[in-house]
Amino acid sequence: MIAITHIGAYLPENRVSNLALLDKFETDESFIRDKIGVVQRAVKTPEQKASDLCIKAFENLTTKADVDVEQIDCCVVITQNPDLNIPHTSAIVHGALNLPESCASFDISLGCSGYVYGLSILTAFMQANGFKTGLLFTADPYSDIVDPDDKNTALIFGDGATVSLLQAEQPGLVALGYDFGSKGAGYKNLVNENKLYMNGRAVFNFTAGVVPKSIISLLHKLAIDKDDVDQWFLHQGSKYIVDTISARLRLDPEKIVFGMQDYGNTVSSSIPMLLSEQIENIAIGQKVAMSGFGVGLSWASAIFEKKGN
Amino acid sequence: MIAITHIGAYLPENRVSNLALLDKFETDESFIRDKIGVVQRAVKTPEQKASDLCIKAFENLTTKADVDVEQIDCCVVITQNPDLNIPHTSAIVHGALNLPESCASFDISLGCSGYVYGLSILTAFMQANGFKTGLLFTADPYSDIVDPDDKNTALIFGDGATVSLLQAEQPGLVALGYDFGSKGAGYKNLVNENKLYMNGRAVFNFTAGVVPKSIISLLHKLAIDKDDVDQWFLHQGSKYIVDTISARLRLDPEKIVFGMQDYGNTVSSSIPMLLSEQIENIAIGQKVAMSGFGVGLSWASAIFEKKGN
Repeated sequence: MIAITHIGAYLPENRVSNLALLDKFETDESFIRDKIGVVQRAVKTPEQKASDLCIKAFENLTTKADVDVEQIDCCVVITQNPDLNIPHTSAIVHGALNLPESCASFDISLGCSGYVYGLSILTAFMQANGFKTGLLFTADPYSDIVDPDDKNTALIFGDGATVSLLQAEQPGLVALGYDFGSKGAGYKNLVNENKLYMNGRAVFNFTAGVVPKSIISLLHKLAIDKDDVDQWFLHQGSKYIVDTISARLRLDPEKIVFGMQDYGNTVSSSIPMLLSEQIENIAIGQKVAMSGFGVGLSWASAIFEKKGN
Repeated sequence: MIAITHIGAYLPENRVSNLALLDKFETDESFIRDKIGVVQRAVKTPEQKASDLCIKAFENLTTKADVDVEQIDCCVVITQNPDLNIPHTSAIVHGALNLPESCASFDISLGCSGYVYGLSILTAFMQANGFKTGLLFTADPYSDIVDPDDKNTALIFGDGATVSLLQAEQPGLVALGYDFGSKGAGYKNLVNENKLYMNGRAVFNFTAGVVPKSIISLLHKLAIDKDDVDQWFLHQGSKYIVDTISARLRLDPEKIVFGMQDYGNTVSSSIPMLLSEQIENIAIGQKVAMSGFGVGLSWASAIFEKKGN
């Protein structure tokens, strides 16, 4: 059994206020606070690359867990904004952290569904190969690609990175099951000629449709009642989408974890960023649900249970 | 048990002769034929993207196997030259092939070690999620990034793509075990400032060192004698590197599969390109070994056995 045992996180200190942009985008504070849900965005320096953010997240992890780099069996980075296309960013992280030559390294290219996919991919890969310790990084610095004049995207995305420590035979969050989906034919609703772009209505309709369906289907497959889930970690696409999915599923508002006001939508880092603050407080036997959705179009849902040793 | 059951392949028809470049690069025919081993290179049209090559490989697969697209549970593309960075190329392939919404799709970013890694990643992911049918694509069109004036790379790489059909409970090649490795600290021997570059001597030394070690370690772990392997599929980096690895391991030359003379080093497609020609002829009980190595620096070895139903 491979469990998520600890999560390190990094947000650049620099913040850009959305409230200072109300005039530029002809909008008002309630749109910023209640619809988008992002008051300020974390923005890295232009020099910082995805691998630099990963290293910072790893430094944070070492304050929470004893990590012996010599024992790392695999190192995976989820990103669509790699340092370079060649090599994979995980190779650069591998070198920077002095991981051993026996460490398997690869990148996964996925957007906002990436963390949930990555958990399934890496735990399965570890299990199949008898690996005991893995690092799953998320880092997708959108500030490098967002057009600051595009109202549909400029107010939403923030930079950040996380690293999840995956370990065999340790207390932690263990997956009970997953649900995955793709709608490649709709990819142009979120990208256009290699430029980030968002058809807000189409993406909203897609998300509000498929994500509750994915979660219901997973609950059904696992024979778990939604009221037995203790915390919900939905991808922080915007406050409005989190509210909409929660309402459609009639989830208990107290169980919804929300947090993007002070840093923005960090793409594949959004779920583990929130989970990094909660994971140490989840009690044995408690269940948490996650769902990531976005670019692709792509979605993935999962339910985890905190297991003891 | 997930097996590789069939492999589709695609090489662009257009060929560029290396023999026509002897003067330009101040070299001779024996260097081309005996060291590099690439007489002509397959080169796609500038308009063709990675996903287009994947679709062509899929068309070839459908001439070899009955493929019901509605039954595809997952679709993975291995590439470091994606159509776009956002979305993943597998989403574009997913849309083009009309794969179902339930199909999980993601890209893996790896170079010449990508096929061997990808087989382990996807079969483990399928097994863990109860998936029966998967498509593993390789497509890394280097003609888009190679500098035609760089002697170290311009004569080597060719364009191509493959797709491996992975199926549960079907006769085919089943993995007995894998060995993986990374040396991220050495990545600059194969890329420099996002430009393809090759420190030929460093890459050769690295490869000639780690690859035989990886293969010996895997044989030992699986308690298989190298003489019990029926065919060797080494990444076709160059004729010289295939010859060197074979010699260091004292492999039977008749068991070495070689084939890049007429199309070049197709990166992650090089092993499945050769395997696509052989797979239907491998008898039940026969074993094949593979090893991929390159950009990262990264390597992966595996031994497969043909199993009956």
